[in-house]
Amino acid sequence: MDSMTSAEPAPESVPTVRHSPADIVLTSERRDVPVDRATAAARRVIDALLRTDRANANLDRVAEELDSIADHLEQHAPVVAERLIDMWRGEGVTRHDPVTGPENAIAPPLALTGRADGSVDGVVTLTLPYQGPPGHVHGGVAALLLDHTLGVANAWSGRSGATAQLNVRYHRPTPLFEPLTVSGRMVSEDGRKINSTGAVHTADGTLCVSVEGLFIDKRVPRPR
Amino acid sequence: MDSMTSAEPAPESVPTVRHSPADIVLTSERRDVPVDRATAAARRVIDALLRTDRANANLDRVAEELDSIADHLEQHAPVVAERLIDMWRGEGVTRHDPVTGPENAIAPPLALTGRADGSVDGVVTLTLPYQGPPGHVHGGVAALLLDHTLGVANAWSGRSGATAQLNVRYHRPTPLFEPLTVSGRMVSEDGRKINSTGAVHTADGTLCVSVEGLFIDKRVPRPR
Repeated sequence: MDSMTSAEPAPESVPTVRHSPADIVLTSERRDVPVDRATAAARRVIDALLRTDRANANLDRVAEELDSIADHLEQHAPVVAERLIDMWRGEGVTRHDPVTGPENAIAPPLALTGRADGSVDGVVTLTLPYQGPPGHVHGGVAALLLDHTLGVANAWSGRSGATAQLNVRYHRPTPLFEPLTVSGRMVSEDGRKINSTGAVHTADGTLCVSVEGLFIDKRVPRPR
Repeated sequence: MDSMTSAEPAPESVPTVRHSPADIVLTSERRDVPVDRATAAARRVIDALLRTDRANANLDRVAEELDSIADHLEQHAPVVAERLIDMWRGEGVTRHDPVTGPENAIAPPLALTGRADGSVDGVVTLTLPYQGPPGHVHGGVAALLLDHTLGVANAWSGRSGATAQLNVRYHRPTPLFEPLTVSGRMVSEDGRKINSTGAVHTADGTLCVSVEGLFIDKRVPRPR
């Protein structure tokens, strides 16, 4: 089994602020492997399909080529139950989620770093696929990024849990095409309840979105 | 200018429950045009990239082909400011948002129907790109679908506004690979404040996620 497979054993445990050096990246980093290169190229296609001229581009041919690539990939796909076991092998971070996953073309992707004070943060620039109001980030996309960031923040604090409640406040429209800082931290825990907060800021420190999350320490078991 | 361009004039106003027949689709429907076919094929690629065998598929070649397609599309893309004006031409629904947009490969897409009682709903089956916990929908993806659905529900009730607050409750894990009903309705209005609720249910009526949203009647202007 070589380094390009996602079946490569994941780390046995997730790093935490108590046991790991600070300023380490907590999410899966993009590797120089074929699946990550193909996914990065698919991200370019998603974005370019929204930007390209509707009249001039040879979109009929593009549709045929993309269908042909999908056919090829599907012909080499195991049944989903088997693939799920492979995706979730090990206990560490995964490579396929829709926020940070280098193998998921929907993910921008956002990379999150764990800080010594227990917080996590990352910088991401969003483009047209993530648009809500004209020129701005879709409110639901901000919620998606923040929900995931709180989960990573909980893990960095040594806890994990499923989202039970997410309260998102939109302070002002969040711009596309400029770097946004997404951050989160666990603020308290009470038995199985975990409370976390997070935010999206622009580069000049303007608060766009804030979130409070309640998580419950129970997990959907990984498939085996 | 032919029917394949997104510069085709949109309807002058959004349908509302007071002025339109019930049970009409409120979101942009997929057309038999090249850009919609190419986007549908890109969705297949996104999904298949997550499912395909990491070792057997010729992923290096796939990466090259996808990059070549992206190059072609980008070569035919106008500058973003110009493209934004085109995307937002007219006053009706758009074709590019990340939830319902037939031209956005990130969108599942979800189609929403307006009902006589003022509610809107649609059925969608989500697959691996939208995964959070093993075999289940990412909590942030449910928030994304619901935020957008409340916006469409507000429009169906004759109102529109930007999301100010979104409170999402997760009652149980939401399954992938089976039809989910996403629904929403405006419940009250007080001046510029609009309150709306929504939910995600499985086909047997099990409640997975519920949402309350507060919207403020102000809009980011469409670019001209």
